[in-house]
Amino acid sequence: MISRLLFRRLTERHNAGTSVLGVRMRHTEDYHKNWEHKRHKHHVAATIVGAGAGVALWLGYNHQTGASSLPIEAEEDLEKYGAFRNGLPEYTLEDVSKHATMEDRIWVAYRRGVYDITDLIHKHPGGDKILMGAGGSVEPFWALYAVHKSAHVLEWFESYRIGNLAADDIGSSVRNMNDPYGNEPRRHIALKPSSKKPFNAEPPLSLLVDNLITPNGLFYVRNHLPVPEIDAANYELEICDEGAKKEKTLTLEDIKKYPKITITATIQCAGNRRSEMTKVKPVKGLSWGQAAIGNATWSGARLCDVLKDMGIEDGKTDALHVQFEGLDTDPANMPYGSSIPIEKALNPHGDVILAYEMNGEPIPRDHGYPLRVIVPGVVGARNVKWLGRIIVSKEESDAHWQQNDYKGFAPSVDWDTVDFKKSPAIQELPVISAICEPSEGEKVKVVNGKIKVKGYAWSGGGRKIIRVDVSGDGGKNWQAADVLESDGSRHPKAWGWTIWTAEVPVHGKESEVQLCAKAVDSQYNTQPENFENIWNLRGVLANAYHRVNVKKGK
Amino acid sequence: MISRLLFRRLTERHNAGTSVLGVRMRHTEDYHKNWEHKRHKHHVAATIVGAGAGVALWLGYNHQTGASSLPIEAEEDLEKYGAFRNGLPEYTLEDVSKHATMEDRIWVAYRRGVYDITDLIHKHPGGDKILMGAGGSVEPFWALYAVHKSAHVLEWFESYRIGNLAADDIGSSVRNMNDPYGNEPRRHIALKPSSKKPFNAEPPLSLLVDNLITPNGLFYVRNHLPVPEIDAANYELEICDEGAKKEKTLTLEDIKKYPKITITATIQCAGNRRSEMTKVKPVKGLSWGQAAIGNATWSGARLCDVLKDMGIEDGKTDALHVQFEGLDTDPANMPYGSSIPIEKALNPHGDVILAYEMNGEPIPRDHGYPLRVIVPGVVGARNVKWLGRIIVSKEESDAHWQQNDYKGFAPSVDWDTVDFKKSPAIQELPVISAICEPSEGEKVKVVNGKIKVKGYAWSGGGRKIIRVDVSGDGGKNWQAADVLESDGSRHPKAWGWTIWTAEVPVHGKESEVQLCAKAVDSQYNTQPENFENIWNLRGVLANAYHRVNVKKGK
Repeated sequence: MISRLLFRRLTERHNAGTSVLGVRMRHTEDYHKNWEHKRHKHHVAATIVGAGAGVALWLGYNHQTGASSLPIEAEEDLEKYGAFRNGLPEYTLEDVSKHATMEDRIWVAYRRGVYDITDLIHKHPGGDKILMGAGGSVEPFWALYAVHKSAHVLEWFESYRIGNLAADDIGSSVRNMNDPYGNEPRRHIALKPSSKKPFNAEPPLSLLVDNLITPNGLFYVRNHLPVPEIDAANYELEICDEGAKKEKTLTLEDIKKYPKITITATIQCAGNRRSEMTKVKPVKGLSWGQAAIGNATWSGARLCDVLKDMGIEDGKTDALHVQFEGLDTDPANMPYGSSIPIEKALNPHGDVILAYEMNGEPIPRDHGYPLRVIVPGVVGARNVKWLGRIIVSKEESDAHWQQNDYKGFAPSVDWDTVDFKKSPAIQELPVISAICEPSEGEKVKVVNGKIKVKGYAWSGGGRKIIRVDVSGDGGKNWQAADVLESDGSRHPKAWGWTIWTAEVPVHGKESEVQLCAKAVDSQYNTQPENFENIWNLRGVLANAYHRVNVKKGK
Repeated sequence: MISRLLFRRLTERHNAGTSVLGVRMRHTEDYHKNWEHKRHKHHVAATIVGAGAGVALWLGYNHQTGASSLPIEAEEDLEKYGAFRNGLPEYTLEDVSKHATMEDRIWVAYRRGVYDITDLIHKHPGGDKILMGAGGSVEPFWALYAVHKSAHVLEWFESYRIGNLAADDIGSSVRNMNDPYGNEPRRHIALKPSSKKPFNAEPPLSLLVDNLITPNGLFYVRNHLPVPEIDAANYELEICDEGAKKEKTLTLEDIKKYPKITITATIQCAGNRRSEMTKVKPVKGLSWGQAAIGNATWSGARLCDVLKDMGIEDGKTDALHVQFEGLDTDPANMPYGSSIPIEKALNPHGDVILAYEMNGEPIPRDHGYPLRVIVPGVVGARNVKWLGRIIVSKEESDAHWQQNDYKGFAPSVDWDTVDFKKSPAIQELPVISAICEPSEGEKVKVVNGKIKVKGYAWSGGGRKIIRVDVSGDGGKNWQAADVLESDGSRHPKAWGWTIWTAEVPVHGKESEVQLCAKAVDSQYNTQPENFENIWNLRGVLANAYHRVNVKKGK
């Protein structure tokens, strides 16, 4: 019964284009009326072929396999959260469902617990998406957003506990459902997951610098939702020009008719190297090492060529942003989304492409099959995978990932004071580097007083790496790396990374040394020295000097 | 007699397009044959109207007024250098003139001294320009390059001393000559010179942030040579397309026929804030404070519009660079020069303009009257003043300022190991900020536990300032500045700076506090923490956190 209630509530909200608070961030009602049927049709027709149908898919949750995050905590350690607690009043799910607006206060259920989260909402890292669970169980959502399944989050959540859920209603919202992650692609065994559902994983760091081009199977994976299964034969890309009120639908074959452009571009997660920043002070997010980055060739049609055919050209549109929606959707049928500034999209030298090949092969499912937008020089979050729709608009995407995530803040800003409206969405990433060989704690051969060090360096915005400085004494002395290998592209179109090699002198008598690396890009931007002064609550933009401690061997 | 010898040698070298070493860096002889007559004509016709004629001008040197650099040393402190020294052999200028090639070894005279500088040449910060003085007196050159007139340089130079100059020949190369700096414009009394000849000066720091737009009279001045006096009515701009072997000459009126574009752009010297970097370890260069930067509106024709009329368009040229030559010339009649990548020049959104107005007035003489190229987002050195010629080429400018100056290096590189070929010429500058109020050592009113701090922030490449973090405790705690004022342009065309204001808490009991500022640009690039790790031998790119110590008052 209750799952139907939840279903109805979600559907109503979605169709009305309003949240429980009566406000959706951007879309006008008209806009929604025009487009809703298309989104719906699209998903049924193409997105989730073979995996079930409609919203019901998202209500599935397999308690056995559960959701996980890094540090991957044992399920039993989390059993105490949401367990029955003596002395609290009992409520039915019917009771809970009466508290679905700010006016009535917002209640939710989780396992055996009932919670009043009204006062938690403005502190929620996920923004007002939390309201989609209002008046019902949060378990279907947490099946997708596995970050909740950690002691840290659950401890906090438990402080809002107000009661116990009636025994009859336990698990009713997740009973008899399929696992939304039941149809994920196979992954390379070398990928180390930081989260399994959704799947997020990086390759071993030392493998990363074996080739200038990262093999598809070793390319880091950053998924926000389950991987959609898309039949390329039925695939359609919708394009909407909000200003001109024009729309168009292209098949994969249509897209392949445009000139095929191939670029080499590095894609990096905004959270790459977060695990180093978190040592200063904990941050929220997946605990990435230094390998949430990869470099590949991408082939496809230029976005500006496709848009030109709709009359959208530099100087001929009032639009300021190009929004992208994925075919990966959440329990409310809302897609992953983000946007980029129109300048980048319409610049023929911006090299934004609708890519259907990665390293000469059809893009693998984990990387956006059959079509992904590649926005070179720009954070991975804007390189939307499983691209379902492009919207040329005066507005930024209103998606959570554009508005309330992937932004940087001053070190003093915490979850009590953060105002996501005050920072711009991350687009181009700053200059970064990492030491990939040797690894932390390794015993390293010293030859002629030197240690061989290898790593990568990259900068966003097409800035080329012009120098990498390496230190063998914790940053007291620096020398430029001997070899910089790249694909040779010029600023401001140097989209790919640089693999560097240095022979670093380690003359002292100490048995351990600290290696450090910092890069300089063609704008002569440099990396910050430490994480203290760039710390931010989401742990993004972690580009301080990379430091690796090694033991000297013979 | 000797001054004629020198004159002839210089003229011969110039016409042949070769240096004493038989090598000029780039130009082919054919190229020179084609262009030499134009350069010559141009200078006589337009450059130095009213100031004398030809090369002879440059041989003038007024020993009374002398050359100066910061710290401006008293002339008498420098008297010992080049004075008569007992026990050394005596040479005539005739003797000296026989040593004008590497084969014969390179001798020069300075005041009463004779020097064998053969082994100094590869260490000379000014590169092989030093060879133009070979076999003669260096005094005419040092009249232009006043940096030589410091104890530091003269001490080093004196170590190459081999003899005394015959008494009869002393001063013969500089006798009866006019001062090349005899016709400089009047300057605002508030400008503080770091060098008088050539004139280099910055305004008081606190005045800088009174307006978003820097008044012309208070805009920092960076001259490499004497200011040419140009008659706008006779002014001609030469444009050469090396690939197509096309050339064109435009008058000021011709240029004014193109659509008039106005942009707001910040120009900054690569050496801004050098005086802070030099505290870590001495560097070579003018000792700039934090005010070698200014923000103005510039009006003129788009360079890409002008080039389009010569058939030079994006995708229709093999050229890789656009070179600029000034009408300010050195003793060998060689102009100031530099170049920018073709991508910037041909991009209609690159906003490179041939500017004839600064803040709505004809560009003042110190800033390039009648025409200057404005390359927004790019270091001042490429914004060539008194623009005389544009060369569209496959090659970078071979000018000293492009090849052997305005480049960054690792902290370990010194004047013995530097290889200028190993670093790219600085183009876009990295993110920077400075505290302009209060000033170092000032007693500051604390109101409600807070100090009011004001400054500027800017980043090259059209990157917009998105946040400025300010600390009242030496960098332990940071908070974002309250107000950011800019002209509102969007990334990647945010060419102008941001004036910021912060109310910084100073809660501790200490009577003195250290204020710090660091900015973040729209690529989320940040400033380096300290100067130690970005130190470079030329003291450029000095963008570490700005720190100002103040006393707390009531």
